[in-house]
Amino acid sequence: MRNIKLTIEYEGKEYNGWQKQPNHLNIQGEIERAIQSVTREKVEIIGSGRTDAGVHAFGQVANFKIESEFPIEKMATAINSQLKKSIRVLKAEEVSLEFHSRYHCHQKTYAYIIDNSDQGTAIYRNTTYHVPQLLNVEKMQEAANYLIGEHDFSSFKSSGTSSKSSVRTIYQAQVLKEQTRVVIMLTGNGFLYNMVRIIAGTLVEIGLGNKQPKEMQDILKAKDRKKAGKTLAAHGLFLMKVDYDENKISGKEL
Amino acid sequence: MRNIKLTIEYEGKEYNGWQKQPNHLNIQGEIERAIQSVTREKVEIIGSGRTDAGVHAFGQVANFKIESEFPIEKMATAINSQLKKSIRVLKAEEVSLEFHSRYHCHQKTYAYIIDNSDQGTAIYRNTTYHVPQLLNVEKMQEAANYLIGEHDFSSFKSSGTSSKSSVRTIYQAQVLKEQTRVVIMLTGNGFLYNMVRIIAGTLVEIGLGNKQPKEMQDILKAKDRKKAGKTLAAHGLFLMKVDYDENKISGKEL
Repeated sequence: MRNIKLTIEYEGKEYNGWQKQPNHLNIQGEIERAIQSVTREKVEIIGSGRTDAGVHAFGQVANFKIESEFPIEKMATAINSQLKKSIRVLKAEEVSLEFHSRYHCHQKTYAYIIDNSDQGTAIYRNTTYHVPQLLNVEKMQEAANYLIGEHDFSSFKSSGTSSKSSVRTIYQAQVLKEQTRVVIMLTGNGFLYNMVRIIAGTLVEIGLGNKQPKEMQDILKAKDRKKAGKTLAAHGLFLMKVDYDENKISGKEL
Repeated sequence: MRNIKLTIEYEGKEYNGWQKQPNHLNIQGEIERAIQSVTREKVEIIGSGRTDAGVHAFGQVANFKIESEFPIEKMATAINSQLKKSIRVLKAEEVSLEFHSRYHCHQKTYAYIIDNSDQGTAIYRNTTYHVPQLLNVEKMQEAANYLIGEHDFSSFKSSGTSSKSSVRTIYQAQVLKEQTRVVIMLTGNGFLYNMVRIIAGTLVEIGLGNKQPKEMQDILKAKDRKKAGKTLAAHGLFLMKVDYDENKISGKEL
């Protein structure tokens, strides 16, 4: 038995999200199908987490167990040959049998990309969210700083979610201006359902001057979804990378 | 009578190029239709030049004459409201009646964007051309330097073109590496049919080591299309900007 770790890029637009489900095009199902055509073996891949319909990834991670002796150095290219071009396996690596892409995830980084130009962009319209009014990036950064640390993020979670605890830790929260783009980058040990998109919606309110940066603290404390901004559209959101603590995976600590 | 200058971004993928033609979706026709819905006046727009099917633009320029008194500051937003999102008018300006977007064009800048990652990119697959083998960017730049200046570019022109002269001047030729992208940027007083895509194809041959940088000089001298590399795909090509000599347009020198 071998355990294979994949790093995957996808454009979410045409998919009904990561998770396998009947009668809806989904990323997990497409990759499983491609692996099966390459290896003639039916596998189930485990993603580091789901992404919603329309959400993109530059660095989703998944793993699967397989008996096939298909050479690892040819695996990414072979799987890609069986996939639509809106999904690309960037890397395939053989890892220890213990590795589990969801349980062993150490931290994740998401980016929410805003096109802050007057008239919007034609070329990047499917991979940015358009806000025509000029955003105050300094105020957005000031507000984002309140998110760093361990907090109960109940105000930033969509209702109907099943997570037991709403406590998560944000390690980094950056708001970067790149020409006419504003990029919100969040690194944390985990994210609640719609959390990044609600944080982005709240930061946009602050960037527009509708809320003051220090209100972010009050919103956190309130633990009330109604205090935060709206959930921004899926097509601005990217799962950038998933990090693992290599020491924990490779050895006895598991 | 007023003369309006538009700066336009578009993703070329779904269009059969800039030029108006019956029974094919084209950018010029779409914009004319949008202007007519906004102003109730039938206009003909003059582009700085055609772009081929599939070619993109970040800064195409066009102008049109109109009687309508529609306020200029609302014009870009109004036209965009009547356009598909794959075309955006970035700016609408009122200019002197003499201004002609093709005749008065001083220089143009094109970019050819290569995705030089192993497995290709899912997210930017429609706006980059994939070359999986690692390109030597230094050698490509060395070769590109031979293009600078006034030359007969017959070797870099597709057959069946009607231009009288094949002499053009290249002012700048840069090959830039940005993460896994290689960007070829060319600024010149004009470009022959397919010239940028053939130059890009030739530079890729050099980047792969199939040709030496100084062969670029021999290819130029040969004035023979067969000596140059292949015409790379349209979807990597961007018209970046069109520059005008403001002194010439605004006054007596016309």
